[in-house]
Amino acid sequence: MSLSLSQRCLKISPSATLAIDAKAKALIAAGEDVISFGAGEPDFDTPEYIISAAKEAMDLGMTRYTAVAGTMELRQEICKKLHRDNDLNYDPSEVIVCNGAKQALFNALSAIINPGDEVLLPVPCWLSYPEMVSMTGGVPVMVPGNEEDGFLLTAERIRPYVTENTKAMMLNSPNNPNGTVWNREVLAGIAELAVEKGFYIISDEIYEKLIYDGLEHVSVAQFGDAIKAQTIVVNGMSKAFAMTGWRIGYAAGPRSIIKCMTAFQSHSTSAPNTMAQHAAAVALTNGEIQIEEMRKEFDARRRLMYNCLKKIDGISVHMPQGAFYMMLNISNWIGKTFNGLTIANALGFAELLLLEDKVAVVPGGAFGAPEHVRVSYATSREKIVAGIERIGEFCRRLK
Amino acid sequence: MSLSLSQRCLKISPSATLAIDAKAKALIAAGEDVISFGAGEPDFDTPEYIISAAKEAMDLGMTRYTAVAGTMELRQEICKKLHRDNDLNYDPSEVIVCNGAKQALFNALSAIINPGDEVLLPVPCWLSYPEMVSMTGGVPVMVPGNEEDGFLLTAERIRPYVTENTKAMMLNSPNNPNGTVWNREVLAGIAELAVEKGFYIISDEIYEKLIYDGLEHVSVAQFGDAIKAQTIVVNGMSKAFAMTGWRIGYAAGPRSIIKCMTAFQSHSTSAPNTMAQHAAAVALTNGEIQIEEMRKEFDARRRLMYNCLKKIDGISVHMPQGAFYMMLNISNWIGKTFNGLTIANALGFAELLLLEDKVAVVPGGAFGAPEHVRVSYATSREKIVAGIERIGEFCRRLK
Repeated sequence: MSLSLSQRCLKISPSATLAIDAKAKALIAAGEDVISFGAGEPDFDTPEYIISAAKEAMDLGMTRYTAVAGTMELRQEICKKLHRDNDLNYDPSEVIVCNGAKQALFNALSAIINPGDEVLLPVPCWLSYPEMVSMTGGVPVMVPGNEEDGFLLTAERIRPYVTENTKAMMLNSPNNPNGTVWNREVLAGIAELAVEKGFYIISDEIYEKLIYDGLEHVSVAQFGDAIKAQTIVVNGMSKAFAMTGWRIGYAAGPRSIIKCMTAFQSHSTSAPNTMAQHAAAVALTNGEIQIEEMRKEFDARRRLMYNCLKKIDGISVHMPQGAFYMMLNISNWIGKTFNGLTIANALGFAELLLLEDKVAVVPGGAFGAPEHVRVSYATSREKIVAGIERIGEFCRRLK
Repeated sequence: MSLSLSQRCLKISPSATLAIDAKAKALIAAGEDVISFGAGEPDFDTPEYIISAAKEAMDLGMTRYTAVAGTMELRQEICKKLHRDNDLNYDPSEVIVCNGAKQALFNALSAIINPGDEVLLPVPCWLSYPEMVSMTGGVPVMVPGNEEDGFLLTAERIRPYVTENTKAMMLNSPNNPNGTVWNREVLAGIAELAVEKGFYIISDEIYEKLIYDGLEHVSVAQFGDAIKAQTIVVNGMSKAFAMTGWRIGYAAGPRSIIKCMTAFQSHSTSAPNTMAQHAAAVALTNGEIQIEEMRKEFDARRRLMYNCLKKIDGISVHMPQGAFYMMLNISNWIGKTFNGLTIANALGFAELLLLEDKVAVVPGGAFGAPEHVRVSYATSREKIVAGIERIGEFCRRLK
């Protein structure tokens, strides 16, 4: 037969994000002074006590396979964390440790999606969501958010998109890419809708600890036993503990689903790195102080970036309440021509901004927001001030 | 709609291996003196210089995301290794680093399998192969090996199983579970068949360094450009470097396939653990001495175990040439009744042996060998002597 490739992989969109990232890196390599707002990870180092725990693990010989679902030590710490922070009670048999929260999401979809099942995705959403849904045979159903409401989708806005094929909804609060935080009232409505209609919620809570203005993080699984039995809570160490490269995420949910996810993981990757699991357990036990220090710094940068951006004519921005991203509405500039180049969409805006003023931002197309660009404030205050100044200069010249 | 689970996951066989492993652990926890021949990993600790490299990586701040396909440092070391050890030339763009060789295999299948594609599996084979093929939508086609030939499958034996739907063959030399090493002549024939018929070969070479009797490891990709363009070579750090818990494996192959595998990995897990990648690069640069020491010890244990087993009436065993496993043919004991329990198959034999004489072995059913049990010599010489003595005693009483 022919040496063809799989439709599953050929369907994956080439990443516009990566393309512009490659251009930015090429400019930097060529000695250009590029300021990047593209970061998807904290710029802090992993706290020293977590590194010490990993070293200790290696010295103690923790270098062999663990159980596929993760060590009992780490799963117990995760259960304690979910109880302490989220008022959720799980047994270690209802928890699986994965290679990052990304794999927890992918395993969850792999465990529940049959061909043609629909998955509701509030838009804008993280660019991997629609790809993961397609890769597991599902159909991504984009549910558009409204910028005026801060992209907060209520049950009423979601209901018209529910069909008899709706299998799940992916919820991400605080949200990447726009920093939206779903509040208790809205979440209660979504929980009610999911129970009424009978679909799962995959609740991606990876930005839980990065939340501002005194808001509280609420998990949709908290609204009673019925919704908890339909929810897979996903979280991980990357964003709160500055542990992106360690690749430790987890999921908690009904035992039958966790069992399926574990079976899938047992034949696709096995458990994640053993010493990283021990380090994660130590981090969950002792981590609150460092988390709070990093959160405060992100909050200060958020305000700084927002205040700088507000002064730019022709760009509108919604103050985010969580994570470390903002979405800039650049629709004013679509159709404008500059130096012979016409800006067709956010990608065109991002390319021209990089070319002209050496600022890297992420075009929103892959997030379902073709008239927005995402900027990350996971960078220093100096770079925030200088970079936003450049964007202002760029817009003044664009006029 | 109903809150059902995916057929993909529900189809995964419950693991008889894990069930008996759980029983063995329960006996050990209850204070019983169990000798386990179940190990699927070296009993050596990761060499100290590799642990030092990981510590250094953390001290240097290597705790963030890497490129999805792995760091350039590690991919370059992998290219050097493939050139040095296997006479294979690849560019870093033709290499992907994964969460263990298991993920490299799973990604490879994900990149090439469309629904209904058939994948040839020489039997006995590693229990994850048929599951992975099914999970990615393919059809596992078991090609039975012959015990008298040491389970070595030639192109002539494989040819009748090739159909117009044959998409790939999974080849594992040295082999888990029976230690068979495919020789140059047989591999040349298989390469010719694959090129003639146009199917991929996924060549799992994870046991490459554990090979005995002066035999050489040959990669099927070595037989010319045509077969290299159809082969995905998979290898990793786990077995040769005693790095199972680090979860670093890799694949090398045609750029188009590696690109698909990278796209798939980018939305399912991202790259593996960052410091483990650095440690793996250092291991590949400096590892030969420790590898050879471990290999020699495995070889000595292999001979010891074989000589002990040969003395047992009613069990036949083929001397393995690689890896750290042997398959015991226990067909003589099928149908025998002992203390009211009848041995129906290898699982029954293994259960009774554990119950009666406290020796844990792995029943061959999941490997496609229902009349064999797998024993691992990745354990001390003392335990090998004592454990095989117990098996002999068990067989004497069974008569």
